[in-house]
Amino acid sequence: MNKDLAISDLTARFGTKINLSTADREQHGADESSHAVMMPDAVLYAATTEDVADAVRICARHRMPVIPFGAGTSLEGHVTAPHGGLTIDLSLMNRVLAVNEADLDVRVQAGVTRQSLNAYLRDRGLFFPVDPGADCTLGGMVGTRASGTNAVRYGTMREQLLSLEVVTATGEIIETGNRARKSAAGYDLTHLFTGSEGTLGVVTEMSLKVYGRPEKLMAGVCRFPDLGAAIDTVITTIQMGLPVARIELLDELSIKAVNAYSGLKHQEAPTLFLEFHGSAAAVDADIAAFSDLAADMGGSDIEFAEKQEDINKLWHARHQLYYATRAMEPGKHVVTTDVCVPISRLGDCMRETRRDMDESPIVGTMLGHVGDGNFHTILLADPNNLGEMRALDDLHDRMVTRAIEMGGTCTGEHGIGLGKMKYLEKEKGPAVHLMRQIKAALDPVGIMNPGKLLPGMENGS
Amino acid sequence: MNKDLAISDLTARFGTKINLSTADREQHGADESSHAVMMPDAVLYAATTEDVADAVRICARHRMPVIPFGAGTSLEGHVTAPHGGLTIDLSLMNRVLAVNEADLDVRVQAGVTRQSLNAYLRDRGLFFPVDPGADCTLGGMVGTRASGTNAVRYGTMREQLLSLEVVTATGEIIETGNRARKSAAGYDLTHLFTGSEGTLGVVTEMSLKVYGRPEKLMAGVCRFPDLGAAIDTVITTIQMGLPVARIELLDELSIKAVNAYSGLKHQEAPTLFLEFHGSAAAVDADIAAFSDLAADMGGSDIEFAEKQEDINKLWHARHQLYYATRAMEPGKHVVTTDVCVPISRLGDCMRETRRDMDESPIVGTMLGHVGDGNFHTILLADPNNLGEMRALDDLHDRMVTRAIEMGGTCTGEHGIGLGKMKYLEKEKGPAVHLMRQIKAALDPVGIMNPGKLLPGMENGS
Repeated sequence: MNKDLAISDLTARFGTKINLSTADREQHGADESSHAVMMPDAVLYAATTEDVADAVRICARHRMPVIPFGAGTSLEGHVTAPHGGLTIDLSLMNRVLAVNEADLDVRVQAGVTRQSLNAYLRDRGLFFPVDPGADCTLGGMVGTRASGTNAVRYGTMREQLLSLEVVTATGEIIETGNRARKSAAGYDLTHLFTGSEGTLGVVTEMSLKVYGRPEKLMAGVCRFPDLGAAIDTVITTIQMGLPVARIELLDELSIKAVNAYSGLKHQEAPTLFLEFHGSAAAVDADIAAFSDLAADMGGSDIEFAEKQEDINKLWHARHQLYYATRAMEPGKHVVTTDVCVPISRLGDCMRETRRDMDESPIVGTMLGHVGDGNFHTILLADPNNLGEMRALDDLHDRMVTRAIEMGGTCTGEHGIGLGKMKYLEKEKGPAVHLMRQIKAALDPVGIMNPGKLLPGMENGS
Repeated sequence: MNKDLAISDLTARFGTKINLSTADREQHGADESSHAVMMPDAVLYAATTEDVADAVRICARHRMPVIPFGAGTSLEGHVTAPHGGLTIDLSLMNRVLAVNEADLDVRVQAGVTRQSLNAYLRDRGLFFPVDPGADCTLGGMVGTRASGTNAVRYGTMREQLLSLEVVTATGEIIETGNRARKSAAGYDLTHLFTGSEGTLGVVTEMSLKVYGRPEKLMAGVCRFPDLGAAIDTVITTIQMGLPVARIELLDELSIKAVNAYSGLKHQEAPTLFLEFHGSAAAVDADIAAFSDLAADMGGSDIEFAEKQEDINKLWHARHQLYYATRAMEPGKHVVTTDVCVPISRLGDCMRETRRDMDESPIVGTMLGHVGDGNFHTILLADPNNLGEMRALDDLHDRMVTRAIEMGGTCTGEHGIGLGKMKYLEKEKGPAVHLMRQIKAALDPVGIMNPGKLLPGMENGS
């Protein structure tokens, strides 16, 4: 890499859009996780796809790493710059370009966030369902194949994408698909770029499915005497085919953490948070069926609401959990795990994980997008206590091994980034060899987000 | 390629599983389309994944083309052997390996056909929804990213796949995913192989989603005074969010063809064929809502049935259409077209296409999986009349150009094969360059189904 020449060419082309200040570089050298800050050499605030293409071409010429950056909300160090390079910040590319109400699709730039898209759609009676915790950019959500609480009904980011505009590693601008709902024309590049974490190119625009707002939306909670009863209720709900829009589980310690954090007195028991969408008749029937089932399984305090402020009150604990867990032991290193297993194994996996956590010195809460078989733990360890840090790593290792042995994955929705690289080969075996071949073919100079996702290619070019 | 050495090595390894007879080679040199027969040099009836891997390794050593073959029901010449080589017939790999009722998924070998899978699942109250016309193998359906009448509700083959076992072009055996419903771990190889038409490797096994049989299933028909009224009814049905399981349109000439073929007296008018799945209450409500809507749009003779034999009677015309069209002018060359457009453009696209057909010398019927924006025409031309054959080509060209200009695709579900290669670049532009790079990376010797899908790589190695 010839960094000085690269920066001089970038400055000549972009002028003040290139930022070299430490503050800017530091801000772009970290995400929301506990991964170490690793600064890029420069930051470009791209305004157009052509900006991105020109920047990538300049970087390719000088073998300078390129790191795409949206809202910086990733959880596995995806946007850090272990080899320096140019971070391309896409947050100014935040326009909704078209809303096709008749086709239920939209065209957006990659820097649009999920919440701003929903604000834009609200007046038209439409919504976009994929909702990771943070207000991520849609480009970032493509990068990590993001998901969230609605995935059990509407699918993940993977299911919403009709087409991507991508700047390739050689600075070419391509469109992977079109607005047809299905196509059998050639290799599925849309899905190859989805989940590729900026290692194959920079996503600059996309066509996405959106949905009509349901006639009726009701949300509720239900408490259980133990974790097993709550999980069994989830499994039966899914297997009965009840079209639940959201079904989230918080364990007893989670509710305890939220009570302490917000000065509340929720019953400290494993709790399900649910939402149903549909016609008035269908939602009422679904809630009645769920309530019968949950009561049979030992559920109690079943409560549903329709007004948004009442729903917010019921769901308060769910929304506060991340901050409430951190507040249990302030200053500690936080790791959010993300395994996903076939739903028939979810009970075994969550119970064994809870037992393992209880037996370890690590404090942690457990929650899940349980309708998908996906759950997280939020684990705390003292960064100055090596023994505790190692215990956290070991606990996480056992969790991932357990999930993979049960036919699952090390990451349901957060992606590989830096943090899960050591697990990719364990999960995928020789398939990783093909991923390396694809990477080498599409990014021959090795400049696209080097050091992420693919183990054994950490050194970029 | 050293054909003689390859065949001698294959015979040494496989003995009588290798077939060199002209009859066997001829049968494997053609599919169900009008594409010319092009025979392979040999046919292997593979019994195991290891058979496939060993065969591919031997072929790679001698640069001998490899063509995967399932039921031979493709429509774009996918299984022909323009460069000779070894056809691997997977029809003996036809075992259902596991049914996980609790997770609603199955594990099958690639040679299982969709109808035999459904026969296997019936007693367990499960079904697999993807239903191209023929009784294809599931491996072939992965290859072409197949679809069918249920896609509007359940999605295409793309949405059903959890994981694939693939023999790569170098004879390695990989597994692309696992049974978790979602994963953010690495590049999406499952979807890269889906729709790759055997040009990147041979699919040998897969994990697939299956579904619980609906509590109630009702099917019906409805006739319209003109094509526009029928299409507008479809568009409104989809936009209202009515969860139709199937919605198929036959034009007036289609019904005429079926009446002549089967000696029936259906009213010769554009006709919709529908199916609704769900709880008894939901299906009744959906049918009432559809019937109101259709009557408003000028629909008449709305008739629904619940007993399978009554449904079969109602849907008879739909099932007979291909043969009925061929019988209109026996001995003619048949081309089935396959464009798909955003549903807001479906009316324009179908009306302009019908007008274009009426103004051309080509006779053809028109039908559609219209809920997806996908429709076919079945076109007839005299193979000995050059003018007619050229008129057919021109008509098809205009149809594809029209669909692409309306934001659609040259193929909704049949794939590229030989027949659509000339359109791939028109539709995908510079993205085809990336497809070529992927092909070169994963199949460096160029042995996997050479001459298909990718224009400019027709000559294989």
